[in-house]
Amino acid sequence: MKHYQGYLVDLDGTMYKGEAAVDGASHFIDHLIGLQVPFLFLTNNSSRTQDQIAAKLNKLGVKARPDQVYTSSLATADFIKEKKEQARVYVIGEEGLHKALTDRGHTLVEEDADFVVIGIDREISYTKLARACLEVRKGAGFVSTNSDTAIPTDKGMLPGNGALTSVVAVSTGVDPTFVGKPEPIIMERALKELQLQADHVLMVGDNYHTDILAGMKAGVDTLMVETGLSSFHEIEAHTHQPTYKKLNLHEWLNGHKG
Amino acid sequence: MKHYQGYLVDLDGTMYKGEAAVDGASHFIDHLIGLQVPFLFLTNNSSRTQDQIAAKLNKLGVKARPDQVYTSSLATADFIKEKKEQARVYVIGEEGLHKALTDRGHTLVEEDADFVVIGIDREISYTKLARACLEVRKGAGFVSTNSDTAIPTDKGMLPGNGALTSVVAVSTGVDPTFVGKPEPIIMERALKELQLQADHVLMVGDNYHTDILAGMKAGVDTLMVETGLSSFHEIEAHTHQPTYKKLNLHEWLNGHKG
Repeated sequence: MKHYQGYLVDLDGTMYKGEAAVDGASHFIDHLIGLQVPFLFLTNNSSRTQDQIAAKLNKLGVKARPDQVYTSSLATADFIKEKKEQARVYVIGEEGLHKALTDRGHTLVEEDADFVVIGIDREISYTKLARACLEVRKGAGFVSTNSDTAIPTDKGMLPGNGALTSVVAVSTGVDPTFVGKPEPIIMERALKELQLQADHVLMVGDNYHTDILAGMKAGVDTLMVETGLSSFHEIEAHTHQPTYKKLNLHEWLNGHKG
Repeated sequence: MKHYQGYLVDLDGTMYKGEAAVDGASHFIDHLIGLQVPFLFLTNNSSRTQDQIAAKLNKLGVKARPDQVYTSSLATADFIKEKKEQARVYVIGEEGLHKALTDRGHTLVEEDADFVVIGIDREISYTKLARACLEVRKGAGFVSTNSDTAIPTDKGMLPGNGALTSVVAVSTGVDPTFVGKPEPIIMERALKELQLQADHVLMVGDNYHTDILAGMKAGVDTLMVETGLSSFHEIEAHTHQPTYKKLNLHEWLNGHKG
């Protein structure tokens, strides 16, 4: 089996589900740490900061430093920075997105924005959506952290950021640039953070339509685990299959060590 | 020129613009009243009640009784009533929609809804959208008052109900039934209210994509006036043209009387 110089590791369904660690998650990360192989946790979650996510992982027994967490918010802030340093950004989103944008040197504004950025916002309002529409119509670039249409919660599948973003897209007729998985944008930036080439890295995740497609689009090998959203049965008919399929990360570790 | 037994008359851009009457509006309505020709004001506006809209028209000098106003909210309530009497409805919307649904005998509920109904709601929230998604996923019928993607306001084009509805459509993958213009549903119900056949009625409006298309789809002749959204120049390339095109309602009255 090929040896990889770096790993990109999904969170929800791969490292944890809700408030519980996924079986094998901590062993897998301990294994990477033992091998001194660099890795990043790669998540479409735009609402939390690196500190908050690392704290959650540590609480669940998965060793993580804040700088090992790369979110769709950070990728969005980096993407915009490449287009324009210290951009004026009108943002709809939560703490993780606000912090990522300001940490990268952008200014959050209420009008005359260079970019409108949308991430999941559980305090969404008509006023916020209206302002985003007006700014996009005035010519601001339109960027969305991720296209996820639904989020699994204990109440059921609730609207994801892709669904919220559609209000502005439908109203203005302008398509946003999506940054998160499965788009290559977040992958390119994560590889840059790892300072590795695509063909030396393995993407690990549970969701075929985000994690695995993201890897495929970016030329990164993929390991799909069946501990989260997608099942091997569901994806049987797809032409493009993950590089590896394992029931869980224990099975991967056994094969990898053996 | 053909004589019509009844008229369907758009409001915004045809009878008024913002808080001002459109030139010729009151004369046109006086003319219909003089001829004792029945007519309905037909609007996609779901937020206001019949009383509120009639009051606005009267204030602007356009004679109107509440029962002469037929909104997308009333058409929605009537449409649902045909599917199920006294339905359980989870509603996102404003006063006009709430009142129309309860006036038609439906019950507004927070869960186990037969139908989810969405109309423009300037107090939209994530919680409301989440509940709508959960109910649609559980099998509730999904109905939206109208598909307008943007509303003209003095601040610019703000999100319309079609844009808000897209959150639930995109998140659940279920397409809603739209009721308002240009859909035939509102036209069929308005003709029923007038107790007239389609080919005896004239639809009067300023918006090609709602008023005029609604008439065409329903087999109703159309008069397009250039006092609102669409211009004759813009619609030149369309294969299907309004039955009549007049700069304003004065021009129509002159031709009609002369």
